Amino acid sequence: MKKGFFSLCLASVLFGMVALSSTPENPSEDQAVKLSDQTEECLECHRTISPGIVEDWLSGSHAHMTPAGAMEKTELGLKVSSKAVPEKLLSVAVGCYECHSLNAESHTDNFEHFDYKINVVVSPKDCATCHTKEQEQYSSTKKSFAYGNLKKNPVFHKLVETIISLKEFKDGEIIQLEASPSTEAETCYGCHGTLIEVTGTRTFETELGEIQVPQLANWPNQGVGRINPDGSQGACTACHPRHSFSIEIARKPETCSQCHLEPDLPAWNVYRESKHGNIYSSVHHKWNWTKVPWTVGKDFKAPTCAVCHNSLIVDPDGEVIAERSHDFGARLWVRLFGLIYAHPQPKSGDTYTITNADGLPLPTTFKGEPASDFLMEEESQKQQQSKMTKVCTSCHSTDWAEGHFDKLHKTIEETNRMTAVATDLMLSVWDKGWANPANPFDEAIEQKWILQWLFYSNSVRYASAMSGPDYASFKNGWWNLTKNLQEMKYIFKKKQ
Amino acid sequence: MKKGFFSLCLASVLFGMVALSSTPENPSEDQAVKLSDQTEECLECHRTISPGIVEDWLSGSHAHMTPAGAMEKTELGLKVSSKAVPEKLLSVAVGCYECHSLNAESHTDNFEHFDYKINVVVSPKDCATCHTKEQEQYSSTKKSFAYGNLKKNPVFHKLVETIISLKEFKDGEIIQLEASPSTEAETCYGCHGTLIEVTGTRTFETELGEIQVPQLANWPNQGVGRINPDGSQGACTACHPRHSFSIEIARKPETCSQCHLEPDLPAWNVYRESKHGNIYSSVHHKWNWTKVPWTVGKDFKAPTCAVCHNSLIVDPDGEVIAERSHDFGARLWVRLFGLIYAHPQPKSGDTYTITNADGLPLPTTFKGEPASDFLMEEESQKQQQSKMTKVCTSCHSTDWAEGHFDKLHKTIEETNRMTAVATDLMLSVWDKGWANPANPFDEAIEQKWILQWLFYSNSVRYASAMSGPDYASFKNGWWNLTKNLQEMKYIFKKKQ
Amino acid sequence: MKKGFFSLCLASVLFGMVALSSTPENPSEDQAVKLSDQTEECLECHRTISPGIVEDWLSGSHAHMTPAGAMEKTELGLKVSSKAVPEKLLSVAVGCYECHSLNAESHTDNFEHFDYKINVVVSPKDCATCHTKEQEQYSSTKKSFAYGNLKKNPVFHKLVETIISLKEFKDGEIIQLEASPSTEAETCYGCHGTLIEVTGTRTFETELGEIQVPQLANWPNQGVGRINPDGSQGACTACHPRHSFSIEIARKPETCSQCHLEPDLPAWNVYRESKHGNIYSSVHHKWNWTKVPWTVGKDFKAPTCAVCHNSLIVDPDGEVIAERSHDFGARLWVRLFGLIYAHPQPKSGDTYTITNADGLPLPTTFKGEPASDFLMEEESQKQQQSKMTKVCTSCHSTDWAEGHFDKLHKTIEETNRMTAVATDLMLSVWDKGWANPANPFDEAIEQKWILQWLFYSNSVRYASAMSGPDYASFKNGWWNLTKNLQEMKYIFKKKQ
Repeated sequence: MKKGFFSLCLASVLFGMVALSSTPENPSEDQAVKLSDQTEECLECHRTISPGIVEDWLSGSHAHMTPAGAMEKTELGLKVSSKAVPEKLLSVAVGCYECHSLNAESHTDNFEHFDYKINVVVSPKDCATCHTKEQEQYSSTKKSFAYGNLKKNPVFHKLVETIISLKEFKDGEIIQLEASPSTEAETCYGCHGTLIEVTGTRTFETELGEIQVPQLANWPNQGVGRINPDGSQGACTACHPRHSFSIEIARKPETCSQCHLEPDLPAWNVYRESKHGNIYSSVHHKWNWTKVPWTVGKDFKAPTCAVCHNSLIVDPDGEVIAERSHDFGARLWVRLFGLIYAHPQPKSGDTYTITNADGLPLPTTFKGEPASDFLMEEESQKQQQSKMTKVCTSCHSTDWAEGHFDKLHKTIEETNRMTAVATDLMLSVWDKGWANPANPFDEAIEQKWILQWLFYSNSVRYASAMSGPDYASFKNGWWNLTKNLQEMKYIFKKKQ
Repeated sequence: MKKGFFSLCLASVLFGMVALSSTPENPSEDQAVKLSDQTEECLECHRTISPGIVEDWLSGSHAHMTPAGAMEKTELGLKVSSKAVPEKLLSVAVGCYECHSLNAESHTDNFEHFDYKINVVVSPKDCATCHTKEQEQYSSTKKSFAYGNLKKNPVFHKLVETIISLKEFKDGEIIQLEASPSTEAETCYGCHGTLIEVTGTRTFETELGEIQVPQLANWPNQGVGRINPDGSQGACTACHPRHSFSIEIARKPETCSQCHLEPDLPAWNVYRESKHGNIYSSVHHKWNWTKVPWTVGKDFKAPTCAVCHNSLIVDPDGEVIAERSHDFGARLWVRLFGLIYAHPQPKSGDTYTITNADGLPLPTTFKGEPASDFLMEEESQKQQQSKMTKVCTSCHSTDWAEGHFDKLHKTIEETNRMTAVATDLMLSVWDKGWANPANPFDEAIEQKWILQWLFYSNSVRYASAMSGPDYASFKNGWWNLTKNLQEMKYIFKKKQ
Repeated sequence: MKKGFFSLCLASVLFGMVALSSTPENPSEDQAVKLSDQTEECLECHRTISPGIVEDWLSGSHAHMTPAGAMEKTELGLKVSSKAVPEKLLSVAVGCYECHSLNAESHTDNFEHFDYKINVVVSPKDCATCHTKEQEQYSSTKKSFAYGNLKKNPVFHKLVETIISLKEFKDGEIIQLEASPSTEAETCYGCHGTLIEVTGTRTFETELGEIQVPQLANWPNQGVGRINPDGSQGACTACHPRHSFSIEIARKPETCSQCHLEPDLPAWNVYRESKHGNIYSSVHHKWNWTKVPWTVGKDFKAPTCAVCHNSLIVDPDGEVIAERSHDFGARLWVRLFGLIYAHPQPKSGDTYTITNADGLPLPTTFKGEPASDFLMEEESQKQQQSKMTKVCTSCHSTDWAEGHFDKLHKTIEETNRMTAVATDLMLSVWDKGWANPANPFDEAIEQKWILQWLFYSNSVRYASAMSGPDYASFKNGWWNLTKNLQEMKYIFKKKQ
C-alpha cells in the first residue's frame, strides 16, 4: 500500500473530524491534532469497515488531544495521571494503534494484521500507560476481583450453578444438570466479567484477501472484573464505553445502572425514585457533564452515583470536597449488599480469601458473626464515613447528614435481624431434615430464604441509604420481607 | 464582623450570580436584585459551608426577583398570590433570611444563630406569606392530612405496623414485635410525612466557635403531610425542591413519581408506558417548562401529571382551559386508589374521620357499601369530571373523552367486583376460623387478599385512567388478579 | 360562512405557524406553504376547539411541506414513496382535510360535517396515498394481523378470556364469567388493536348548533393491528402519534416500549439496561433524530430499536447499510417470543392460519415440534441474519457479531429445553388428572407453567439478544426459571 494513498484517505478523515468538531464533548479540545502514521493506516480501512466506532472515537477526547497536551492541564483538571508517558505516544492523538499495540509481549491475543502487531483487547494495564493512578486505584478493589470473587468462592459458585444450570424432570424430581459457559457469560459474569482466553485462530475472507484473527472464548464481555488475555483484571469500557470513552457517559447514573439494579442490588432503582434522582431526571440536561473538576451547585445540582462515590468534587472556590478515586469503595464503610448479612467493608478486594468462624468463605456466619479479621476496623470505618459526609454537607447540615447515617445504621441492624429470623427458620428446617443443606440454595423454601436477604433486606438498605421510600415499603421492601416470611412459615407448618 | 467585609463577599456572590445568570430558569428574570443585609450575612458563611444550596438558590427565581417585581405580572402570569406581602420583604430578593425567619413565634424550632433568630424548617404557613392561595388550597386536601390519615386511622395503622415491625421465629410461629420510628420514617411516612418535633439542643464545634442547633426528631423529611414544628401540615419542598424551588422540576412527572409509583399506586409507571408518556419521554426537551400560564400545544405537546391535575392551562389565544390549583383533587371525582374499593372522592381531606356502616374508618365496608355521608355526591362528581374533560378536549373530541371515561367507570366496576370476589373468599376463611380477623393483614392468605385490592385492582384502574395496557394486562393487572385468586383458592382448598 | 372571514383566521394561524417555526422538527422545512381552502376552514374552528392537535400539527412536517416538495428529495432522503400522489394534494400542505377526506367511499365512519364529508379515522390505506411502500410493507406483517392473531386463534383467545374475565367465588370454587369488550380494549387489544365499528350516530349541542358524529365501538385505539372502519388493518399512529407524526418520536425507543415491555416481552427493559441503552440514555440528546437517511456514528452513537429493526441506515459516505422497512420482521430470522417455544419466524403475518402436528394453531407442539411448513426455512433465516449482522458490523467485527448470535442460538436452545422440562411436568399433571387440560391456562399450577415460557424464557432470550445480564439472571431470568420450577414441583409433590 502506498503512503500517498493513505494520506489522501486521512485527509478525508480529518475533514470528517473537523466537520464533527462543531460539537465535540469538550469544546476546549476542538482542534485537529496529528495522527500517527499507523493510526492513519488503521483508519483508512476501518472508517469504511467499522464506521460507527471511528465516528464515535472522533467525538471523544482521544481524537482531539495528545497526551502531551493533556498533561499541560492544571493539577485538578488533569486526566492523564502518568508522569512518564512513552515518548512515541506524547505528540500524537490517542488513536487506534496507540491503544491496540501496547504491551504486545504480554498479550496472548496479539496477532499480525497487515504487518502490524495488534491486540484485540485493550486492557486496564494498557490504559495505565497514561492513566496510571486510576488503574492502580482500581486494581485492588472488589470490582477488579469480581470474576474470582464468584468463581473461586465455592458457596457463591454453588448458588450460581444452581440458578443457571439446565434442569430435567424425572420421576417427580427436578434434576440439576450442567451450566454452559455461554449462559454464565450472559448472566452473572456479564457484569462480573468473564475469563477471556485465546482458543485458536479464525480465518475470514475479505475484499483485501484472507484475514486471520485470534479466536477468543467468552468474548465479547465488558464485566468489571474481566480477566484479559494479558492476565490483567477489569474492563475500563464497563463505564467508559468504546470508542468515545466519554466522561459524560461514565458520570451518568444510567451507566452504573447496567449492573447496580433491582432486584438484588437496586441502587439505580432507589436513586431514580429519590429526591436526588428526581432532580437529576428533571434538570440534568442543564448540567455540565464534562467539566473537570466538577463543581457542586454549578456543574450539577444534585448528587449522582459518581458524585458520591468517586468523582473529584470541588466547591465554587475550587476547594476540594472529595478526591477522585477509581476505588469505588473509597468513601464506603459498610457493605449494604448482604452476604448474607450487611457487614463492614472487606479490607481487601479479593473477598474469596475470607474465612468465617464456620470455615466458609463468607464475611459473616449464617448466624451473623462477622469474619472480623477480614473486615474494616471501626476507626477506618469512621474515616470513610467522614469522607462521604463531606459530600453530603456541601448541601446539607452536618446534623442532617449524621442523622441520615444514624438512620441507615439502624436499618442495617433491623434488616440483619430480619435475615436472622428467616435463617433461624431455615436452620430448624435443615435440622429436622426437611431440606438438604448440602446445597442450601436449591429447594423451594431455601429459595424463599434467599429472597429475604438477597432481594428484600438489600432493597430496604439501599432505600435507606438513598431515601427511596417505595423500595423500603412495597417494592421489594418491608412488605415483601413480612409476606415472604409468612409464606416460609406456611411451608414450614405444612412440613410438620 | 464588619459590614464592609460582608459587602465584599457579597460582591463575589453577585458576580457568581451574574455568571450563572446566563441560563437562569426564567430568562426574563435575568437581573441582579438587592439582597437584604441579613441574607448577605447568611451567604457570607453559607456560600462556603453549604455551597450546593447557595448555588441552587442562585439558579432559581427567588434569587432574581423581588416580591414587588413578581406582583407586577399580569393576572395569569402571577405566581405571588398574596395581596399583602409585608413591606420589609417587598423590595429584596427572597433570600435565606426572608424565609427562615418568618413567624418565629410559632416555630418551636427557632434558635439563636449569630444574633439572628432562625427557623430550621420553613413551613407551608411561611410560604403562604407570598403564596397565600396555594397554601389555602393545599391545606384541606388529602395530601395535607397524609400523616394523620395513616396515624390516626387504626385500620391503616395496623396494616403499617404489620408490615414494618420486626419479627421473631419462635416455636414454629412468627411473632410480631415493635416497629421503630426510624423505619416508619423511611417507609410509609417517607411520602406521607413525619411528625417533626424538637427534642433538645445539639452543639457543634466549628471554625467560628461552638454552634447550638435544635435537635429534631423524624427529620429530615419532605412528605406531603409533614407536621412541622410550627404545627402546620405539609412540605412545599415535596414537589418544589430546595433551594431553586424550580417550577420545571415541580411540573416534571418524575417529581410525582417519587410517591405515585408501583406497586400500590402506579400512576407514574402507567403514564410512562402510555402514549402520552411516550410523547413526553421522546420530545419533552423541546417544551417550555417554565412558562406561566402554560399553553397547550405550544409549551407542551402531551399532558403530564401537572397538566391534568393542577396547572393553569390556557389555549394559544390565552383563554383559560383549567385553573391552577394546589388541591390536587380539584379535578377528580372518583378515587381510584381502593381502600379496599374504589369510591367517590371523600368530601374532606381528613379521611380518618370517615365511619362506614361496619363502624370502621374506611370509605367502604368490606362488602363494598360506601360511607356515602363522607363521599362526594353525584352532582359534584359530574362537575369535577367536566373540569378534567375540558383538559382532554384541548386535543380530543368530547366524544373521545366521554368514551374514555365511560371505559374507566366500567373498569372501576369490574375491579371492585374482583375485590369483592377475593373478599368473599376471605370472609369464608375468617368465618371458618382458618385465619384470625383480629389482624386481617398478617397471615399468608390475608396478604394475598391485600395484593388483590392494593396492587392489582389499583393497577388496572390506573392503567385504564391513563391507557397503559401492560399494567392492565400482565404487569400487576388482570393476569395477576386472576393468578393470585387461583392461589388463594389453592390455599383455601388445602385448609379444607 | 364567508370566505373572507376564513382567510383572516388563517392569517393568524399562519402567523402562529411562523412563530412556531423557529424550531420545527426539521429546519429545512421552515417555510410557510399553502393550505387548501378546506383545511383553512377546518382550522378556523378547530384551532379553538382542539388547539392542542392544531399546534401539534403545526410543529410537524405535514404543515410545512407539500407532497410535491417532498418528492423533490433525493432517493435516500425520500419519505413520500408514492409515485402518483393525486394532483389536488400535490401543492398544498398535508392538512386536516387532505387526510380526513381520503377514500370516503370505503369509510363507514364517513359523515357530513359542515358540508364536508369527513372520515373520523385515518387509516393506513389513507396514508398509503403518499406513503405507498410503507403501507405495502406493513400490510403483510404479524403487526398488521395482530388483532386476528389473537381473536381468531382459539388457543390464544382462551388464554385471553381466562385472564381478563370476571370471576365469582362459589362453593369453594372460582367460576369464570364473561370478559367485557371494554376490558379487552384496555388490555391485550390495547396493543394488538381493536375492531372499530360504527354502531350509530351521536348528537352534540355546540355553539354552532347541533352536530352529528358517528358512534364508534372500541374507539379510541392505536393498536398496531386495529381493524379500521374502511376494513384496513393497522394504525400508523401507534408509532407516529397524532398530529405531528414526528419521526423523532417514531425513532425513539420509548415509542416501541409502549407495547414491547416486561414481563412478557421485555425488549425495552432489556435495552434500557444494556450497554447500548446506557449510551442512548446518556447522550441521545446530542443525536440527530430527524435526519434521513440516518448515518451511523454521526447521527447516532448507539443502536436503538429502529436502527436494528427498520430504519434506513447509511455509513458516513452515504453507502446503505440497511434499507428502511415497515415490515418490522424484515431483519429477523428467529422469533424469540415463545408460543410456547421460540421458533423460526413465521412465513406469513397471519399466524392464526398455522396448524401444528397436534392440530393446534401454534407454531410448535407442546412437545416442541415446529410447524415447519409455516415457518421460515433455513436459507431465508441465514439471509435475514446477515441483514441484521450488517447493522452490527458498522461498529463491531464480524467475529464479534457472529459470536454474539451463536450465544443467542445457544440460549434459545437452552430456554426451549427449560420450557420442555416444565411442560413435561405439566403433561404428567394433566395425565394424572390433577388438572383439567380442557383449559390449560386456568389453574394455579398451569399459571406457573405459563410463567416459565411467557415471562421467564422470553426474558432470558431478549436479555441474550440485547445483552442485558440482569434480565437473564435475577429479573425474570434464570433465577425465576429455576425457582418457579421448584415451586411447580412442590405443588406436584403435594398432589401425590
